[in-house]
This record gives sequence, C-alpha cells and structure tokens, in this order.
Amino acid sequence: MPRYKLILEYDGAPFVGWQRQDNGSSVQAAIEEAAFALCGERISLHAAGRTDAGVHALAMTAHFDLDKEFKPDVVRDAINFHLKPAPIAVLEASLAGDDFHARFSCVGRRYEYRIVNRRAPLTIARNRAWRVVGDLDAGAMHEAAQALVGRHDFTTFRAAACQAKSPVKTLNEVTVERTGDAVAIHCAARSFLHHQVRAITGTLVEVGKGKWRIDNVADALEAKDRSRCGPTAPADGLYFVEALYPGLR
Amino acid sequence: MPRYKLILEYDGAPFVGWQRQDNGSSVQAAIEEAAFALCGERISLHAAGRTDAGVHALAMTAHFDLDKEFKPDVVRDAINFHLKPAPIAVLEASLAGDDFHARFSCVGRRYEYRIVNRRAPLTIARNRAWRVVGDLDAGAMHEAAQALVGRHDFTTFRAAACQAKSPVKTLNEVTVERTGDAVAIHCAARSFLHHQVRAITGTLVEVGKGKWRIDNVADALEAKDRSRCGPTAPADGLYFVEALYPGLR
Repeated sequence: MPRYKLILEYDGAPFVGWQRQDNGSSVQAAIEEAAFALCGERISLHAAGRTDAGVHALAMTAHFDLDKEFKPDVVRDAINFHLKPAPIAVLEASLAGDDFHARFSCVGRRYEYRIVNRRAPLTIARNRAWRVVGDLDAGAMHEAAQALVGRHDFTTFRAAACQAKSPVKTLNEVTVERTGDAVAIHCAARSFLHHQVRAITGTLVEVGKGKWRIDNVADALEAKDRSRCGPTAPADGLYFVEALYPGLR
Repeated sequence: MPRYKLILEYDGAPFVGWQRQDNGSSVQAAIEEAAFALCGERISLHAAGRTDAGVHALAMTAHFDLDKEFKPDVVRDAINFHLKPAPIAVLEASLAGDDFHARFSCVGRRYEYRIVNRRAPLTIARNRAWRVVGDLDAGAMHEAAQALVGRHDFTTFRAAACQAKSPVKTLNEVTVERTGDAVAIHCAARSFLHHQVRAITGTLVEVGKGKWRIDNVADALEAKDRSRCGPTAPADGLYFVEALYPGLR
C-alpha cells in the first residue's frame, strides 16, 4: 500500500482550518475529496501541523495511503485539478516509506507571522497579514523575544483549548525583523502549543508599541499564567513555513 | 479651492479598472463616492495611470479638488473609512498646488510585473501574479529586454485600442530578476502605451521559454508590427509601482 507525501501551499482565509469539521470547508476535507475524485478511495490525510481557521501554509507536509499505486506526478496534478477552485495547491508529491508520518516523524516546524505596520487598511495583503497601526519598535520586540528562546514552560502562551500533554516546549528561534512597513516574526521549534505563535506575537506587539517593557515578557513567561499573556494576534498573519524530518526536509 | 494629492494602493482583482465605466465597479468611482460621503461634493479624480481591469497599484498618485478645506489626514482617514470594504486604501493625502496634476505633471512611471514560475496553481498569490509553467530563463529574458531600452517606436508592443498620439516612447529601464520561483520584470518610463508592459512581458516570456531567440525581440521591435508581438500577459501580475513628479516623488 503506497504512502504519498505531499508538500502543500494554501490560503487559509476561506477555510475553518486544516481539520475536517462540520461547520465549514477544511483544507483536509478538500484534499481528501480531491483524492477520492482521483482514485475512488476514501483516504485519511495527516499533516505536520493542524492550522487554525485563517492560517496559511507555504509548505505544509502531509501524507496519505492509497491501495492503488500512481506515479507521484500524477497524484500531484490530479489532486490539483480536482481541488479547483479551492486555494490549495500540491507543490510536490513523492512516495514515502511506511515509517514516514507527516505529524509524528516531524522534528522541526517553522512559522512566520507577518505584520504590516501602517495606518491605511490592507488591500493586496488583506487576510494575509495583521495591520498594526502606530509606532512599532521591531528592535525591542526582537530583544524581548530572546527571553522565550530555549526550553520553557509556555503555560502563559498557550490557548485554553490546547490539548498538548505538557506545556514545556523548546523554542529554537524567535526573530523579529522589519523591512519597510513589514514586520516579520520567525519562530522555529520541534513542536508548538496551540496558539503559541499568535500569543507570542500579540505579546511582542505590546512591547513594540511601548505598552510593555522588554523584561515584562520574561516575567510573563515565568508567571506560567495565561492571564499574563498579551492579546492573541489574529490568524490572518500566520504562515506555516515548513516541516523538517530526520535526514531530509 | 484646495487640491488634494493622494497616494493609493489597491487590489485590482474586483474592479473593471481605474476608470469609471458602466459595466462594473471602478477604482475611480469608489474613491469619488467615498469623497462624496465625506463632504457631499461630486469630485473628479485624476490619476497618474489609468490601470486596466485586474491591474494592481502599490502607490498610485491621484488628485482632486474640493470646495471645503479639510486637514489632509482627515481626508485620508475619512476616504479610507468610506471605501470599506473595497480593497483600496489611501496611503497618504496631502495638499498640492493648483499647478499639480497627477497625470500631466507626472514625469516618470514605474511598473512591476510578477510571474510565479511553477507547475502548481497559485493560492496565496492568486490574482496577484501570472503563473508560468515550465523552464523560464530569466537571464535570457533580461538580455532580450535590453533591446527595448531607449527611445523607440513601440508599435509592436501597443494595444489596438491604444489612444496615444505617437507610438514613440522612451523606456528607461527593463530589468528581469529571479528570486526562487518568482520572476519580476521592472519597467520605468516617462509614460507607457496601452498594454505596453503586458505586451513586453508576454514577449519576454516567449524568450524565457526558449520559443523565441534573444534577438527576435529586437527584430519584433524593429518590425513596428503588432502581429509580431508575443502574447499579452494577463492583468493579474501587473502592479503600478509609483509615479514621479519634478522635485518630489
């Protein structure tokens, strides 16, 4: 039974999120339906990250099994054909071993959060970034973020609904960089808690606006208290960038 | 009678183009309506470039006159408020002299054409770039483009509907650069013929695909014959980047 690995890009705006739900279209269901149209089999698609409603992916890894064997390029093109007009694309399809699991084999995940720091409403970037009005000190945000790097109890930066067994995670990188009016936050870890990147982003924006001092972020982390977190940033600006696997990307 | 200068950004996808038309929403009409909501005056908005349906703007300059005088920031914020939910934003508003005319005072215009060179359909960049499938040699495109720089009769690269008196234009720059699967074409001139950038782009893509030789572009220009042009690139990938004025931007 061949296993296929997919690299996916999607615009999260019109979806209820990655996961199949009763209340609207999900990315997972759209691809499962497209695979059914290709081969008549009901597949189960597993992803490295189950993104929330409105969250985008630049290169999400997923896998599924089929009874029939197709050339990977046929799988890629057929799923893309049947996905139309949903804003989801299979960038690559390849055969993977039985021991490959998009979620459980994944050893690294990267997210990017995109802010546009300006007064005017977004047009071309609408639903694709978070507009933050007023002065935003990206240097202070970067400095404050460094307190989060490393192995910590991230209870403060965790959604109430988070299902992870432990709030302890190791953040390998949090960098904040400005290019013109664009401010990007890059986060890398083996895995993340639910809403962790959005909670971190919302908190760092408080620092950037001068509402929080730089060392308030370390204090909030230390407190291990959800009520000490800044506001959670909206989904629109969040991108799942890539999933890493041992020995390959 | 104060004259206001606006710097505008818009997503061209939902519009019939810049110019007011009977068959759908135009960028011009949307802003004129928003100004009417602000002050009850019927204004006439003039732009540096009257973009076609689907063409975007990163910083289009426009101007209009009002009987009443408002602070420019009030004009900016009020027009943005009344524009909602149209994907048009006033980035800046300022007072301009009576001798300023967004179209006739403009001494330089820049366009960018964005191509995504890949097989997979576009998702996040849908309606915001032209997807070109297959090998595309950006170096060859750039080399071929240099034949177009300078003062030439651009009859070959002109739409049948073009209303310019003369087909002679001076192209100051045409550069083609690749960043990953993104290929950008930058064009600068005092003014352009109708569809000129899209005609040039479509022609250069023929070179990039290897269907045309590099020197075929110079031959086509020399021919001064519309039938010698490559296919016109779609509107989705075209951005009006900026308008230049004497002594200021």
